[in-house]
Amino acid sequence: MLDTYPDRINIDRVQLAGAIDALLACAATCTACADACLSEQMVGELTKCVRTNLDCADICDTTARVLSRHTGYDANISRAQLAAAAMVSGSCADECLRHQRMEHCRICAEVCRAAERASQDLLASMERHRANVHK
Amino acid sequence: MLDTYPDRINIDRVQLAGAIDALLACAATCTACADACLSEQMVGELTKCVRTNLDCADICDTTARVLSRHTGYDANISRAQLAAAAMVSGSCADECLRHQRMEHCRICAEVCRAAERASQDLLASMERHRANVHK
Amino acid sequence: MLDTYPDRINIDRVQLAGAIDALLACAATCTACADACLSEQMVGELTKCVRTNLDCADICDTTARVLSRHTGYDANISRAQLAAAAMVSGSCADECLRHQRMEHCRICAEVCRAAERASQDLLASMERHRANVHK
Amino acid sequence: MLDTYPDRINIDRVQLAGAIDALLACAATCTACADACLSEQMVGELTKCVRTNLDCADICDTTARVLSRHTGYDANISRAQLAAAAMVSGSCADECLRHQRMEHCRICAEVCRAAERASQDLLASMERHRANVHK
Repeated sequence: MLDTYPDRINIDRVQLAGAIDALLACAATCTACADACLSEQMVGELTKCVRTNLDCADICDTTARVLSRHTGYDANISRAQLAAAAMVSGSCADECLRHQRMEHCRICAEVCRAAERASQDLLASMERHRANVHK
Repeated sequence: MLDTYPDRINIDRVQLAGAIDALLACAATCTACADACLSEQMVGELTKCVRTNLDCADICDTTARVLSRHTGYDANISRAQLAAAAMVSGSCADECLRHQRMEHCRICAEVCRAAERASQDLLASMERHRANVHK
Repeated sequence: MLDTYPDRINIDRVQLAGAIDALLACAATCTACADACLSEQMVGELTKCVRTNLDCADICDTTARVLSRHTGYDANISRAQLAAAAMVSGSCADECLRHQRMEHCRICAEVCRAAERASQDLLASMERHRANVHK
Repeated sequence: MLDTYPDRINIDRVQLAGAIDALLACAATCTACADACLSEQMVGELTKCVRTNLDCADICDTTARVLSRHTGYDANISRAQLAAAAMVSGSCADECLRHQRMEHCRICAEVCRAAERASQDLLASMERHRANVHK
């Protein structure tokens, strides 16, 4: 869809599309992982994992939406929201990794880590772009 | 992720996974199409399209979340939300088709139509399942 | 905000505003109730309640958004989404009522019931409006 | 609902409840303002306002959800998301203020400014709390 946008986009389109995909995959996986944790016998030991999954799903969903909009672009908003996505997906990857003997947490940790990296990389590109503009 | 769910799921997992994917693709495409419409010179003629895109994004997002949860499953909730998704994605496909000379609306119409069909098919399977259970 | 909408709205504005408020209160309360259930010692007995809360929060949020849009209004979409909201808030009220010895579930049951009634009443008004238009 | 949470909360409950309410009001108002802008004759001059409203609605919704969860609390996630909310609600207040001859933008600017202040104040309290803990 990025290629059909009728106006200019200030970010590298391939990197941007990669980050949006990684964030959407992370949101969907975290919604499923929260529910799978709920159905485990030992759910009492997984409540922090459920909660972090829920935060991660909401934050990554919202971040993908913000990054999918280019009209009236405001880099400050994208950067702040992307920083929150990098933070939560990193924390959720750490939390799920602690329970990786459960397949849903093992997969979720990987998908979260990929979202964290994509968010950090895009954030770094946006910082470089800002530095160039202000030079 | 469906295969990692530790308990029983009452719906065919392949069909369910297909519907979730179609709904997520529809939500993401509609968010991008609403924004692309906003940046068109003729945005004044596209306001109904933007609005339907926004509804479709919100409804399909929510429906994918509901379908990704299996703990404490209540078929009535899934069916009602799926019916709303079938309705909005069909209406959004129709609306975008009217503007298909714009590439973003042409693609969005296709993705919405696929979500409509996946929602209707899953709904039909759930109705058949209900009929069998009550036989 | 309804009074500032610059065009015509096909629904009674007071009833519409009441339904939107009831749905937003329900979404916020269900998000909090899901989290409060997670922190209870007996979380293992509350997993269906958490799940229904999460569905109810997502569905009521989305329904309030759909009802807050009037541009390019399509009554079929509003009705289908409102029916899903009436269904989930009724189910969530029933589920929370079973755990009403916990204060968060007792309050949540009340707020869900109010959202269910507001959704059903608005749906009935929309049906009457449709019947009049088609007479 | 905050008073029914069965465990400890690390933030002042009155200030937290105020911030959640301000963010929810901001999200609902921005959804309505985006739609009202869409129905204006001069929508072509309001596309940046629509876009910022959509971002602000999504970000403030998500932030209110994150702040409504206390189980497995991670202050880093709350702070990062709250910073994004402060940023977008401030930008949206500025943008709506430019169109305050329209009643929906005038009201929306006020509600966004209140959300910005509540977010900044809560963020400041959380920073002070962190400083005290690490002293």
